[in-house]
Amino acid sequence: MIIVLKPLSPKEDIERVENMVKARGLDTHVIEGAEMTIIGCIGDTSRIDSKLFEVDPAVTKVMHVQEPYKLASRAFHPDDSIIDVSGVKVGGDNLALIAGPCSVESVDQVLEIAKAAKASGANMLRGGAFKPRTSPYSFQGLGLEGLDILCEAKAATGLPIVTELMSAEYLDVFNEKVDLIQIGARNMQNFDLLKQLGQVDRPILLKRGLNATYEEWLMSAEYIMASGNENVILCERGVRTFESYTRNTLDLQSIPVIQKLSHLPIIIDPSHAGGKWWLVEPMAKAAVAAGANGLMIEVHNNPEMALCDGSQSLKPAKYDALLKQVAEIAKVVGKTF
Amino acid sequence: MIIVLKPLSPKEDIERVENMVKARGLDTHVIEGAEMTIIGCIGDTSRIDSKLFEVDPAVTKVMHVQEPYKLASRAFHPDDSIIDVSGVKVGGDNLALIAGPCSVESVDQVLEIAKAAKASGANMLRGGAFKPRTSPYSFQGLGLEGLDILCEAKAATGLPIVTELMSAEYLDVFNEKVDLIQIGARNMQNFDLLKQLGQVDRPILLKRGLNATYEEWLMSAEYIMASGNENVILCERGVRTFESYTRNTLDLQSIPVIQKLSHLPIIIDPSHAGGKWWLVEPMAKAAVAAGANGLMIEVHNNPEMALCDGSQSLKPAKYDALLKQVAEIAKVVGKTF
Amino acid sequence: MIIVLKPLSPKEDIERVENMVKARGLDTHVIEGAEMTIIGCIGDTSRIDSKLFEVDPAVTKVMHVQEPYKLASRAFHPDDSIIDVSGVKVGGDNLALIAGPCSVESVDQVLEIAKAAKASGANMLRGGAFKPRTSPYSFQGLGLEGLDILCEAKAATGLPIVTELMSAEYLDVFNEKVDLIQIGARNMQNFDLLKQLGQVDRPILLKRGLNATYEEWLMSAEYIMASGNENVILCERGVRTFESYTRNTLDLQSIPVIQKLSHLPIIIDPSHAGGKWWLVEPMAKAAVAAGANGLMIEVHNNPEMALCDGSQSLKPAKYDALLKQVAEIAKVVGKTF
Amino acid sequence: MIIVLKPLSPKEDIERVENMVKARGLDTHVIEGAEMTIIGCIGDTSRIDSKLFEVDPAVTKVMHVQEPYKLASRAFHPDDSIIDVSGVKVGGDNLALIAGPCSVESVDQVLEIAKAAKASGANMLRGGAFKPRTSPYSFQGLGLEGLDILCEAKAATGLPIVTELMSAEYLDVFNEKVDLIQIGARNMQNFDLLKQLGQVDRPILLKRGLNATYEEWLMSAEYIMASGNENVILCERGVRTFESYTRNTLDLQSIPVIQKLSHLPIIIDPSHAGGKWWLVEPMAKAAVAAGANGLMIEVHNNPEMALCDGSQSLKPAKYDALLKQVAEIAKVVGKTF
Repeated sequence: MIIVLKPLSPKEDIERVENMVKARGLDTHVIEGAEMTIIGCIGDTSRIDSKLFEVDPAVTKVMHVQEPYKLASRAFHPDDSIIDVSGVKVGGDNLALIAGPCSVESVDQVLEIAKAAKASGANMLRGGAFKPRTSPYSFQGLGLEGLDILCEAKAATGLPIVTELMSAEYLDVFNEKVDLIQIGARNMQNFDLLKQLGQVDRPILLKRGLNATYEEWLMSAEYIMASGNENVILCERGVRTFESYTRNTLDLQSIPVIQKLSHLPIIIDPSHAGGKWWLVEPMAKAAVAAGANGLMIEVHNNPEMALCDGSQSLKPAKYDALLKQVAEIAKVVGKTF
Repeated sequence: MIIVLKPLSPKEDIERVENMVKARGLDTHVIEGAEMTIIGCIGDTSRIDSKLFEVDPAVTKVMHVQEPYKLASRAFHPDDSIIDVSGVKVGGDNLALIAGPCSVESVDQVLEIAKAAKASGANMLRGGAFKPRTSPYSFQGLGLEGLDILCEAKAATGLPIVTELMSAEYLDVFNEKVDLIQIGARNMQNFDLLKQLGQVDRPILLKRGLNATYEEWLMSAEYIMASGNENVILCERGVRTFESYTRNTLDLQSIPVIQKLSHLPIIIDPSHAGGKWWLVEPMAKAAVAAGANGLMIEVHNNPEMALCDGSQSLKPAKYDALLKQVAEIAKVVGKTF
Repeated sequence: MIIVLKPLSPKEDIERVENMVKARGLDTHVIEGAEMTIIGCIGDTSRIDSKLFEVDPAVTKVMHVQEPYKLASRAFHPDDSIIDVSGVKVGGDNLALIAGPCSVESVDQVLEIAKAAKASGANMLRGGAFKPRTSPYSFQGLGLEGLDILCEAKAATGLPIVTELMSAEYLDVFNEKVDLIQIGARNMQNFDLLKQLGQVDRPILLKRGLNATYEEWLMSAEYIMASGNENVILCERGVRTFESYTRNTLDLQSIPVIQKLSHLPIIIDPSHAGGKWWLVEPMAKAAVAAGANGLMIEVHNNPEMALCDGSQSLKPAKYDALLKQVAEIAKVVGKTF
Repeated sequence: MIIVLKPLSPKEDIERVENMVKARGLDTHVIEGAEMTIIGCIGDTSRIDSKLFEVDPAVTKVMHVQEPYKLASRAFHPDDSIIDVSGVKVGGDNLALIAGPCSVESVDQVLEIAKAAKASGANMLRGGAFKPRTSPYSFQGLGLEGLDILCEAKAATGLPIVTELMSAEYLDVFNEKVDLIQIGARNMQNFDLLKQLGQVDRPILLKRGLNATYEEWLMSAEYIMASGNENVILCERGVRTFESYTRNTLDLQSIPVIQKLSHLPIIIDPSHAGGKWWLVEPMAKAAVAAGANGLMIEVHNNPEMALCDGSQSLKPAKYDALLKQVAEIAKVVGKTF
């Protein structure tokens, strides 16, 4: 941590701020020049609220040098983490291919989609049982019944299942039945929920919040890891910008950035990012070319009648054609599935 | 709802889309011109996912005409709602003046601040017992012990208390002890929590999410109202933009916009918006001049040693001076406290 | 400037980076701790591209300590600058009140509006002769003819005139006829144009770009000042965010921030920010309460028939009523007009 | 264009607004339902400022149905435009590969880079002669001398040259010497400059502004096309968001979106988007996988000593390795170079 004081600060100001720093167990080191006076703070600053020092009238700004996360940091764990999702490896050179409908609607629907997706090469099944909807009047999902339908599809196809947890109330049932527990973008900073994920044995799929910085996203992963569950997979699904033609702006730079800062795998959800089915194919290919560790794609057998997000779903035949091209690009960049 | 088709769409395309609309219980009305073909959809469209129609290849876009919220809408309830917070009226010409420390730290701290704030004119006491922190390693608040300290301060001063609820687990104890239950920006779309707020008798202070549109914010209010609790106060605390000199960008246009779209009161939190104490005074005065229904301001007796957000807190003397100017501006715009 | 190296960087890495720094005429000062190794760079770093050092593999980031602007900086010029616009003082406790139509349409129109605005208290007249329009098919302004109409209105009312310059081609005629030359948001980083403003004697009104940080805005002012024209007035007119209900999000925190960082006056344009006439009144009052040095407001005698931006214009009677309230708020915060 | 009135608007309100519409030469068509009253406006609305109608108190919003651009629209020109840049085809299945230093520094520098880039497969040479810099104190480019150096490199290698025009003052010399004239992000809405581009015979490379919507970007292309120059290539180089770890957020969804809305080619500049050399390789591959019509990449033989943007430049060997992978991905998606 570096504290910048007003240029040519008098000795008593420097000493007063140094004392604030030392009172928190850190060493100080002062550099004085005509244009700046700074105090370098040496020691573990990760648990110190740096903004505190801005209260002092001599301080103009405080800058962090260390990353505030540890368990999620690449520095702490130089090798890629490979997360095991009921037998499917995610991370490193393995490509996670998660497919399925936005919402679970019926046994027939999910079974039909799951079988088709598996035949195309998908290795996990997604489907929403509990749905976060902007409107209280929209379809909210089938709830526990939806979960049971997913389990049936898993039994029939062998595909591990991925679905979103919205409340700690269902922690036990998710831990029992769900292979990969998804935390949605809107709950990325529901810290109370994050802390409770240390109690489950299942890996967590943590979506990026719509306005979360890379650092905040990794700090949310850190919450889960610090609570005792180190199996976290990150999922980029677009961030909110001024552009409203697309639902969100997909940030594919997140792939190399996260892979530099962290050892955790990162997968891409092009369906939610763009909100339009015809954006899914080019963005899925781009994600794999950029080195993503997986794709999460909405597939629906009858998008026109979907209860949710039909306009961003691929039909099974389109998904099949997409995976063929994805396979070729994966080969170029050294990924397999 | 209006569905825009490709210009000069053939009859069968128009009919196919009309049938999709009629299947959902709406009437249709077609307008055809050289540059556009549109289908006006007549009936209650508030529960219909308009994006569904974008699946059809003839459709270029779907536009909503009605607001998707009802209970929160000014159209539904033309007069200002006046919310009663344990005797303090919020809304209309009454100015809510909420003050207190970011975090509850000790009985002495809270009592000292509460007494000073009341003497200056504050009519509610705020303080965080459960704290949403970006880092799992930061101070997380005193929890239930902090709640008891607030109650002690309430007993001593008579000020109703405002504090943040982060988990449905504490719903009962908040309902018993807290006069105004705050839902923080990061939980604005924690829909599971919102739905449960219908079970409490206390009014709710709903902060705007960092990237929430006015419509999404009002939809979150609608969740609470539709679950049975119509006493919602909105609180603007800044939105996230590209500008990082300030913590967030305070959107004071939200005041006239919300007052036009909704009957619910809106108060402003200039402390969290800017993240710097010297921004609080000018923004508090601006908010009142713009017609805000209240102010929520962090006041701390010893900001240098605050466990959280000291850099954005006013000392009691500065708060006192601010309220004197606020009183004069309030008079100009017809507000009282 | 501070260069952060990888923690525990070996001696040769530190020396290599130190040599890069010294080659640019700066002194270095190294601080080494278990968690960080930093190099403080002492000397005038304002002309050094700090990103250059990021090329070195041992460097993790480079942080600026000094502000990159000098002439615009409050540190360089502690007192408020008072800019003289043909006799009207802008800055300090004086409130600039600029009013007029978006576009100059006819002599009668401008004269009528100018007289009414002056009677209400306005002390400058605005009107667009050259109009920056998103569409090539929209009305582009009357050009030089519009300029002559403004001059006629100036002759009739004595109000100094403000109008936008879009091209260096008209520099001489603007210098001759226009009292305050406006540079629009879209040209805020038209560096070629900025550099040429040193050749004119007239003060410049520099609007903030839609996505400009405070620092970039002040750097654009620095361009003008460094080219020889130190009479710059800044104008906030809203920034672009995810919220599309309003045209832009008005950033009133810019008032105290700019006044802290710079000695230049800052005025607010609530008409362009919100794009709706009913937002102008509350935002104008808020701006004055926050300490703005002036207001620029669109006034039109017949907004329904305006060739441009009628929906954000006030009618003269509404402007008159607004200025009465503005006068009262100005008194509270120590401003006069 | 559709005008939404207040629900259950009285007849006289509807007629008044209809008359406003008819006065502009359009036909009207009214739809009335319990929840909405709308007026469909039939005719050419592309030159009408739709916000005008918002002035009427009965109007709640006005929605555009038609795209406001024509010449740039895919509807107007269904086939891909293939732009000829001095013999190099851009658009369709051809991949434009533009490489070179950020700034032209010397003959030796440019020649060395140009030869290496050509050997790797580049088919155009870029280099800045006039540089738009945020600071007036940064290196501003060699100007006309830089242009001559580029011409020398063109003579030696046969590569067409691409460089940025910042001022209409140099229009003639650019028209004579430059094969592809670049308009930078900061001048994307310098409408005066755009209009003058109709006078040159050379194709234009139009970069997206940092906060420009797709529609605004295409409207700027429309300015150039409407002025008489239909040879426009679009270039995405990142948009500004809340994320500051990367310089900008690269929006690769722009590729399929622009290709749907327009017939103009779109190329990607991953160097400026991320501002870090290690982001260039993954983003270049992603861009090609997503169907981009080309790449513009900064290559420097000695990034540590570059006068500008060295930290985002690839060394020639890395560029060579990148193009080998790009070639493989191009094959998968049907592009050639």
